[in-house]
Amino acid sequence: MKPCIVWQTDFGLSWGAVASMVGVCKQVDPELECIDITHEIEAYNILAASREIIYVEPFWPKGTVFVSVVDPGVGTDRRACVAKLHDGNYIVTPDNGTLTHLYYEVGIDEVREIDETVNRYHGTEAVSVFHGRDLFAYTAAKLASGKISFEGVGPAYPVEEIVRFDRDVIEAQVDGSDIKAIVGSVSDPFGSIAFNIKSSDFAKAGYAQGDMVHVILKKDGETYFEQDVLYEKSFGFVEKGAPILFNSSTNYIELGLNMGSFRDTYQVKEGRSYTAELSRA
Amino acid sequence: MKPCIVWQTDFGLSWGAVASMVGVCKQVDPELECIDITHEIEAYNILAASREIIYVEPFWPKGTVFVSVVDPGVGTDRRACVAKLHDGNYIVTPDNGTLTHLYYEVGIDEVREIDETVNRYHGTEAVSVFHGRDLFAYTAAKLASGKISFEGVGPAYPVEEIVRFDRDVIEAQVDGSDIKAIVGSVSDPFGSIAFNIKSSDFAKAGYAQGDMVHVILKKDGETYFEQDVLYEKSFGFVEKGAPILFNSSTNYIELGLNMGSFRDTYQVKEGRSYTAELSRA
Amino acid sequence: MKPCIVWQTDFGLSWGAVASMVGVCKQVDPELECIDITHEIEAYNILAASREIIYVEPFWPKGTVFVSVVDPGVGTDRRACVAKLHDGNYIVTPDNGTLTHLYYEVGIDEVREIDETVNRYHGTEAVSVFHGRDLFAYTAAKLASGKISFEGVGPAYPVEEIVRFDRDVIEAQVDGSDIKAIVGSVSDPFGSIAFNIKSSDFAKAGYAQGDMVHVILKKDGETYFEQDVLYEKSFGFVEKGAPILFNSSTNYIELGLNMGSFRDTYQVKEGRSYTAELSRA
Repeated sequence: MKPCIVWQTDFGLSWGAVASMVGVCKQVDPELECIDITHEIEAYNILAASREIIYVEPFWPKGTVFVSVVDPGVGTDRRACVAKLHDGNYIVTPDNGTLTHLYYEVGIDEVREIDETVNRYHGTEAVSVFHGRDLFAYTAAKLASGKISFEGVGPAYPVEEIVRFDRDVIEAQVDGSDIKAIVGSVSDPFGSIAFNIKSSDFAKAGYAQGDMVHVILKKDGETYFEQDVLYEKSFGFVEKGAPILFNSSTNYIELGLNMGSFRDTYQVKEGRSYTAELSRA
Repeated sequence: MKPCIVWQTDFGLSWGAVASMVGVCKQVDPELECIDITHEIEAYNILAASREIIYVEPFWPKGTVFVSVVDPGVGTDRRACVAKLHDGNYIVTPDNGTLTHLYYEVGIDEVREIDETVNRYHGTEAVSVFHGRDLFAYTAAKLASGKISFEGVGPAYPVEEIVRFDRDVIEAQVDGSDIKAIVGSVSDPFGSIAFNIKSSDFAKAGYAQGDMVHVILKKDGETYFEQDVLYEKSFGFVEKGAPILFNSSTNYIELGLNMGSFRDTYQVKEGRSYTAELSRA
Repeated sequence: MKPCIVWQTDFGLSWGAVASMVGVCKQVDPELECIDITHEIEAYNILAASREIIYVEPFWPKGTVFVSVVDPGVGTDRRACVAKLHDGNYIVTPDNGTLTHLYYEVGIDEVREIDETVNRYHGTEAVSVFHGRDLFAYTAAKLASGKISFEGVGPAYPVEEIVRFDRDVIEAQVDGSDIKAIVGSVSDPFGSIAFNIKSSDFAKAGYAQGDMVHVILKKDGETYFEQDVLYEKSFGFVEKGAPILFNSSTNYIELGLNMGSFRDTYQVKEGRSYTAELSRA
């Protein structure tokens, strides 16, 4: 079996953008299968693209070709690239920060700039606003089908040149059992909020399921939530509407309300303005 | 060909939950194809999950492996199961009421509890909030690929123990040509409302296309609609905006407005509060 | 490989309509792959269906079987048809205007009315509101799998009888460098608006990237935007928030705001009420 092409964009599914990308892949090789992660990433939100891909990437067979297109610089001189990950997967993307989480969490072994002279879908030269179809889908399909090798993507450049966000978006500061974190994600449909605290770091800080944790949440320095919260396996361990800490599906520490929405109740967003302090209760 | 995995959840498509489930299936067997029913079931709405699956299930080849994950009790002691349907299909789901419609309408021949010691995706033991990926997708993929037989799911338990809603959510009371019903569904995107009246029961009650039917609709006992309505093949048989009764795509009796939305016009929801009385006009 | 079935509807993805259509195709032939364009076309908006299909159709391998179901006349006497396009693709659709853009832009070589007596999914005769499943998906699957030839669809009828909108929805009036256009589409998720001006016609009118263009936009004759706007390769060539003209992904002339939404800022909709005049700045 050839590897799947697995993609995410900010194009939405209300028009044919994604289907035209699939068509280009099928023209390259009708056997290729294209799978959606999401096409509802907030428009132009590169950090969200970086974060979302890493929730999915580890669960795919090695050799999979991921494509991520959140690309406010399309048609300008930002690089279009393919990165070879340390675990054997590939990702085709504008090099604009999208590779941040993969760089720190999975590792990138090599990166190559897409050579437009050979890896652009012909007939689209007059269009500069849809590299998702004309460059990224086409190159991904050639790579997944074996029509080009990784070397055939284009010239390599130093991995250290990859554009990336600061590492603190991924890792909280841990001092004994005191943790200073930020809200890394509120994308959970159930309205839980995920901190930039890995479950493994939470364990190293001494917390075990069944513990009570003192949680202070601030927005721009102003406290809007301060409570002792149970850390347990799942939200069903507290009463309906009560707060609960648990390991998220991607092994970060998440705070939710059983059958309710923490995000909506407290109007929480992601980012550095939304800080958290966790300590022993 | 191996059977498809056909699924529905309340996870939404704005993040990678579903794509990580597909990845787990592809790790089990790259040949498996995963098809979406919907991932927009209202969060935690088990009754909706039970109802939606039955609109799709009869139209798939026998042997198909369905997966339904609306699972407010994830990580608690509710059973995770695989049911073998009377028509030869399978469904992998929390046993929490999701099987209600299939139980009454299709029949369940056997049910087995998923044995987590052998049918859990390894490496996810620290996560208790995503059985969709770690238990249900993984078990479905093993079953669909033939890596386990139905017996390999885990121990059988009595079909009568399956958790289910009362049967009246499915069947209206018919007394001659007088019918007392409830609104079973308003999920139609065109805004028609479906009663819990099967087209076949409507025919048995003596109604034929071309008949006028007296329809009274009440919310909590208060009448909000009372009219004689034509029963015909399709909404195009009345003027734009006029009410019309017709057989829904799933063979229930549906009430709509031609090119309009009955649901939005009359603010109708599903459930026992929304009753209907149909009789000869 | 058998051709894919590629479809669009106004059914939405919040319920099982599309999955039941896929199931019918899989019953005809489990090898068939079904790909979504979109299921979020505005309900009953036939013109949008006609426009959306043409953004995708050229990018698929020849022989592809497209299905479009925006069908306010379902169950009435409008024709259900399969058209054979000049480029070798097929489209299965109600003949209600959906073929307009394909008729003018790609060309239709032959059209046949679906013969319900042989090409209807059996067991659904009592349902008249879901030809998407019972007629269109079933016929498309038979055609794509080779179980019927194009002739097996049903009787041919004259291509000139195909129902279509006036050609001015597709083509602007060009007089030297003066262009009178309408807003053909606002479906772009980034909020750009596309005129009914082909990039090639814009070039013939003498405009080149780097030029300034005088743009007047009117709603019902009232001017709401008048500015000199740069025509360039991509939106990234102007400052954030500034207007920009560029070739859209489908080779029409599009007007956007860099990183902003022209549609939302100026409350623009598609259609003849929204006119544009472009001339040399």
